[in-house]
Amino acid sequence: MALQTTAPRFGANYVPSAGWFYSWLDYDGDAVRRDFADLAGMGLDHVRVFPVWPWIQPNRAIIREQAIADLLDTIDAAAEHGLTVAVDLIQGHLSSFDFLPSWVLTWHKSSLFEDPTVREGLTAYVDTVARAVASRPNVFAITLGNEVNNLWPDSSTTAATSTAWAHELLITLKKAAPNVLGLHSVFDDAWYKGDHPFLAADAVDLGDLTTVHSWVFNGVSRVDGPLGPATLTHADYLIELARSLAPERPVWLQEVGVPGPDIPVDLQAEFTRRTVSSVLTNPALYGVTWWSSHDIDRRLLDFPDREYDLGLFTVDHQRKPAAQAFAEVIADVRLNGVPRREPVATLRAPVDLRTEPGRRAEVAPGSEFHLRWVAARADGPVRISS
Amino acid sequence: MALQTTAPRFGANYVPSAGWFYSWLDYDGDAVRRDFADLAGMGLDHVRVFPVWPWIQPNRAIIREQAIADLLDTIDAAAEHGLTVAVDLIQGHLSSFDFLPSWVLTWHKSSLFEDPTVREGLTAYVDTVARAVASRPNVFAITLGNEVNNLWPDSSTTAATSTAWAHELLITLKKAAPNVLGLHSVFDDAWYKGDHPFLAADAVDLGDLTTVHSWVFNGVSRVDGPLGPATLTHADYLIELARSLAPERPVWLQEVGVPGPDIPVDLQAEFTRRTVSSVLTNPALYGVTWWSSHDIDRRLLDFPDREYDLGLFTVDHQRKPAAQAFAEVIADVRLNGVPRREPVATLRAPVDLRTEPGRRAEVAPGSEFHLRWVAARADGPVRISS
Repeated sequence: MALQTTAPRFGANYVPSAGWFYSWLDYDGDAVRRDFADLAGMGLDHVRVFPVWPWIQPNRAIIREQAIADLLDTIDAAAEHGLTVAVDLIQGHLSSFDFLPSWVLTWHKSSLFEDPTVREGLTAYVDTVARAVASRPNVFAITLGNEVNNLWPDSSTTAATSTAWAHELLITLKKAAPNVLGLHSVFDDAWYKGDHPFLAADAVDLGDLTTVHSWVFNGVSRVDGPLGPATLTHADYLIELARSLAPERPVWLQEVGVPGPDIPVDLQAEFTRRTVSSVLTNPALYGVTWWSSHDIDRRLLDFPDREYDLGLFTVDHQRKPAAQAFAEVIADVRLNGVPRREPVATLRAPVDLRTEPGRRAEVAPGSEFHLRWVAARADGPVRISS
Repeated sequence: MALQTTAPRFGANYVPSAGWFYSWLDYDGDAVRRDFADLAGMGLDHVRVFPVWPWIQPNRAIIREQAIADLLDTIDAAAEHGLTVAVDLIQGHLSSFDFLPSWVLTWHKSSLFEDPTVREGLTAYVDTVARAVASRPNVFAITLGNEVNNLWPDSSTTAATSTAWAHELLITLKKAAPNVLGLHSVFDDAWYKGDHPFLAADAVDLGDLTTVHSWVFNGVSRVDGPLGPATLTHADYLIELARSLAPERPVWLQEVGVPGPDIPVDLQAEFTRRTVSSVLTNPALYGVTWWSSHDIDRRLLDFPDREYDLGLFTVDHQRKPAAQAFAEVIADVRLNGVPRREPVATLRAPVDLRTEPGRRAEVAPGSEFHLRWVAARADGPVRISS
């Protein structure tokens, strides 16, 4: 796939407004359609959706037909609203909660990454679900799972095992769904933490394009947030880091959002407009997918506080300031095209992230290199060479 | 409640023939009715049923109405077949699998016994489910959960904490369901293992009667199984141990079965007839509830091998030899009454299980005391004094 020359995709990570992902247990296609109407109405073109693994595969030998049917109905609901769909498979991890079936817990405790029997079960799951969703023409991508590196350390792994795990499951995925993008997703410890057993190289080598998730609570908002240049350009910085390892490969900003308290409510619109504008200048950009579509009802308990209010919409379907800002950027791109800008500089990374993963902290938020990049970025796009 | 003078109850622990307990996720009331017809047809009067906790309470604040409705339909299905129902709440543990919601796992890892927030969630769960099922006139008992001591050590606890946990939840249960038996259930490490953090005293002090689970794979079948006197009288031995601590309290043999390879297939009918006959002579006996109603489909994976074949019926509704033997004993009791026999001896336990739980091994299968009791039991019922 060559670098994007047309407008990037714009979408949302779909968090159901009623009952969060627990709503899979009481699937209501009408409620999903109501949510998708919100998203289509603000000009989005896609949603990323998250089935919950243990409810689909409660026993290693069972993949529930009704759960697949519900997932397909969600995809069809998206089509009815003109939305394409990316499906993540192994959830796995969602907003601090890990969903794990009883066949990998306690008496059956096994690492999802290391245990051959569990990998066999996951292979069957990936194969079956990927095959099913790829039957729908509006599915454009399937990701192995949302930030699977959050499943470590509860599931033990090594860098070599993590790589092989994702590589093998992606082969299964592509065989089952050859005509859609097959993707891997990790949160940014893979880029910034020296001892993290999931590699930055995997993000750029595995799957059909690179995905990055930009969350400013990772340390960057402490550099100069909420509207400082490091905070506002963190998404673009991650894209450039990814691009430095694979210059010809598109990068999907698969998650970005306005977490409080890092980004206070009254600054969320501005943060959104400026963050999205900064990545739009990047020719590697494949798309921007907001986390998340809808808030979490505060009657639901035990979420980290910042997770409740990340929605573009409230639980009662009111468009929030970030949504308004995002919609305006999208409308502008659709009208005027992408505001390309030539790079003003290229900085050489202090470390080869492929060969020296132990030195990843040298490019982390607040590192000397990162701050130098941010300073240069004030004048325009800044490439990174490896 | 005084000691039983009428015929004891006879029932089965209900394991759905199609899809094991995973069938709750795709509830099929017709399939349940078909299973209950098997059980009513062999003369049983009750079933013990097992909802799966994390599918009913996926978030601490959510107790799913549809899941409660499905449970109530199961209870109504039992009524249609003349069966009364005991409901266990916190599953929790079933046949080697622990079912745990994401709000007590990994990032939210908490002990079910020790963590006040989790206990708050469990209290709401017990209150709501107990209140709902007690609305049905054929529900006669509610147990906190199936062998909750299997949830340790994954959930840490101490003996004092375990006692307080069960005591407090039973108060909630009885307040929600004052007119049914409120019960506690533990497997027999509580009787036999000195360092086990669930006490024998709890079994006889908490709840409205004592429950015991007799599984000959606990070591007793190695003494003289499959048809040796120790193996055949283990259930009666447990009842006598329980009675020694609370002489006026009925004891429900809530689980007993024919696990392979300890009890080979060709001896299961005889084991069943003789085990049930031995406990029938015991005036403390409240009832006998076979584990289990139906086999587990061998296409389902990862169960311990012995769990697959414990059913009174096969997955395609064929009555097995143990079922035939059990049915004949039941028919005989209904026709001729209970064969009471006066005790031939009373043996003094070598340890006070209430005050010296650390010495529980002295009454375990194979201990000098146990073997002495078995020898005396050859001539008839043998009481134990504490």
